[in-house]
Amino acid sequence: METQVTEATSAPHAGVIETDAVIVGAGPVGLFQVFELGLLEIKAHIIDSLAYPGGQCIELYPDKPIYDIPALPVVTGKELTDNLMKQIEPFGATFHLGQEVTTVEKQEDGRFFVATSKGTQFLTKTIFIAGGVGSFQPRTLKVEGIDKYEGSQVHYRVRNPAQFAGKNLVIIGGGDSALDWALNFCAGNADGNPHKAESVILVHRRDGFRAAPASVAKMKELCDAYEMQFMVGQVADLDEGEDALKGLKITGGDGVTRVVPADQVLVFFGLSPKLGPIAEWGLALEKKQIQVDTEKFQTSVPGIFAVGDINTYPGKKKLILSGFHEAALAAFGAMPIINPEKRVHLQYTTTSPKLHKVLGVETPVFD
Amino acid sequence: METQVTEATSAPHAGVIETDAVIVGAGPVGLFQVFELGLLEIKAHIIDSLAYPGGQCIELYPDKPIYDIPALPVVTGKELTDNLMKQIEPFGATFHLGQEVTTVEKQEDGRFFVATSKGTQFLTKTIFIAGGVGSFQPRTLKVEGIDKYEGSQVHYRVRNPAQFAGKNLVIIGGGDSALDWALNFCAGNADGNPHKAESVILVHRRDGFRAAPASVAKMKELCDAYEMQFMVGQVADLDEGEDALKGLKITGGDGVTRVVPADQVLVFFGLSPKLGPIAEWGLALEKKQIQVDTEKFQTSVPGIFAVGDINTYPGKKKLILSGFHEAALAAFGAMPIINPEKRVHLQYTTTSPKLHKVLGVETPVFD
Repeated sequence: METQVTEATSAPHAGVIETDAVIVGAGPVGLFQVFELGLLEIKAHIIDSLAYPGGQCIELYPDKPIYDIPALPVVTGKELTDNLMKQIEPFGATFHLGQEVTTVEKQEDGRFFVATSKGTQFLTKTIFIAGGVGSFQPRTLKVEGIDKYEGSQVHYRVRNPAQFAGKNLVIIGGGDSALDWALNFCAGNADGNPHKAESVILVHRRDGFRAAPASVAKMKELCDAYEMQFMVGQVADLDEGEDALKGLKITGGDGVTRVVPADQVLVFFGLSPKLGPIAEWGLALEKKQIQVDTEKFQTSVPGIFAVGDINTYPGKKKLILSGFHEAALAAFGAMPIINPEKRVHLQYTTTSPKLHKVLGVETPVFD
Repeated sequence: METQVTEATSAPHAGVIETDAVIVGAGPVGLFQVFELGLLEIKAHIIDSLAYPGGQCIELYPDKPIYDIPALPVVTGKELTDNLMKQIEPFGATFHLGQEVTTVEKQEDGRFFVATSKGTQFLTKTIFIAGGVGSFQPRTLKVEGIDKYEGSQVHYRVRNPAQFAGKNLVIIGGGDSALDWALNFCAGNADGNPHKAESVILVHRRDGFRAAPASVAKMKELCDAYEMQFMVGQVADLDEGEDALKGLKITGGDGVTRVVPADQVLVFFGLSPKLGPIAEWGLALEKKQIQVDTEKFQTSVPGIFAVGDINTYPGKKKLILSGFHEAALAAFGAMPIINPEKRVHLQYTTTSPKLHKVLGVETPVFD
């Protein structure tokens, strides 16, 4: 996918959202970027590839305690996200979730045309990349030659359940996605399930699951009733026909490799982050990190800023608290682009009646 | 006071504390500096001119809400301080409060000799200046010629209550300090007060007080009983004798200026911050701010770092959250000086068993 920041070759599209700021990434730093822009009375649109805000905090460690957020002696990824969502509430940011930025084009008027994988389109004065470790992509099954079946017989997400109805399925994984889909495709038509598979075999590397215990119990019940099958094992190789996949060769816990027939293979190994299309925006990079200055955290393209784990500069540490600071300075740095005629004075949330208005709180009266 | 960072001219003193890090300033950023050093297993000594930690958060706005601490939608200065004190508990920093740094001398071995106004002495490998807006000094009475009576007949703090016993006192101010001392010096000997004054006149610019209502009520009771006197007014001039102050000329609310005799004058106008002796340490300054780099937040003197409101660099904003980031990078920046042979890897508090040990928490078990 070619998404260089280049001069636009086409006129702006109809239905395009015109805005001052687009934030790419709804992790903690992207969320706090909404706050810092909001204090300067700049409204933002925020895009994330995940279906919910929180980024790695939610995707990788929602329940694990974090100890180094200043003045929060201990907080989970979930709590941190909830706190930030509450903090940015007054600023009415618009979320565009479950989509990735696919196009960034500089316009003649200095703005950027941004489009996402869901077709959302923006004309924006500034872009704040808060992409963290990148967008989350499904972990793939590492077996030679598997790539050519991807999308036809091998799948990492279920886009259209109907395509699996009546098929012999092999589902691989031990988390909630694997178990939930196994149970879903196994459920009888009596349950009103229009997508019942011909057969379901669940394969996991061990007889222990990350999935909810209730799902695991239900799965075992269905196995006992011969409605589905579970086997401990790992995929060793493909069983290929002339021009289609016939099945998988699976090495079991007993060390024996068996051929398991399959029309369709569904793999649920969780998500892992990848820098993704941002690598192709034409920004100056250093070891897959976006280079920024430390005054405005601006990239090599004026008007595009990068904050949080995705950027690099001398002394950079990938700490959430550093991203918070970077977001603050990037907001001030963007002001001359967004409102060239407006003079900005640093005001304090503790004392400024103007900021109290912006925050929607009452200015307290003190002697 | 001459406190240049110079080569030591004398041998280190006996009773000196040898340490890796001295932090100057126990405001929020100084406290978080303890945390960031602690994660790197560096113990710190922390000095503040105030008698308690918290800096301006406690001195200037303990009860006012702050809205821009990331992931804390609203927090008072007091709560912020309490949270940080809890967060740094595992690291056993030693507090040296109610004292100012008076001497900083570079030693031949590269360490710094630091001494305070209370005589505490350190030999330290590094210094972290987190001095905020400076040390808090009493606001003075602005009347021409008053300076020469300071310490003898005009006082901004009470160091020795005995010197006021049996004297005719004028106490100026409307806060707790003014009221408390007025009541204290007025109380009869029957209350076991060894410091009863001959007379007490309280002067405040208006008939309204910041002091606790109970103290105000008690004061008015004593006035009604002719035990003390209150007058609304402002000091217009001094009433001077040959070589001593005889009293003050006070313009009342009625516009009439009266001579009020006084042996001793006590002024309680609150505290205001001053950069103080740090200005004389020989560090590169820019508009009374200490210049630092943005990689380590090191000053022009290697081994001395400056974090928070007291420093300056391109893009600097005086935000608490910026100070937190600066403290983190300063801690990493100081490691080669403190432990030249130790290699430092960034570890995460969420996942590192080593950091969990340092923090004194259990490493949770996850699948």
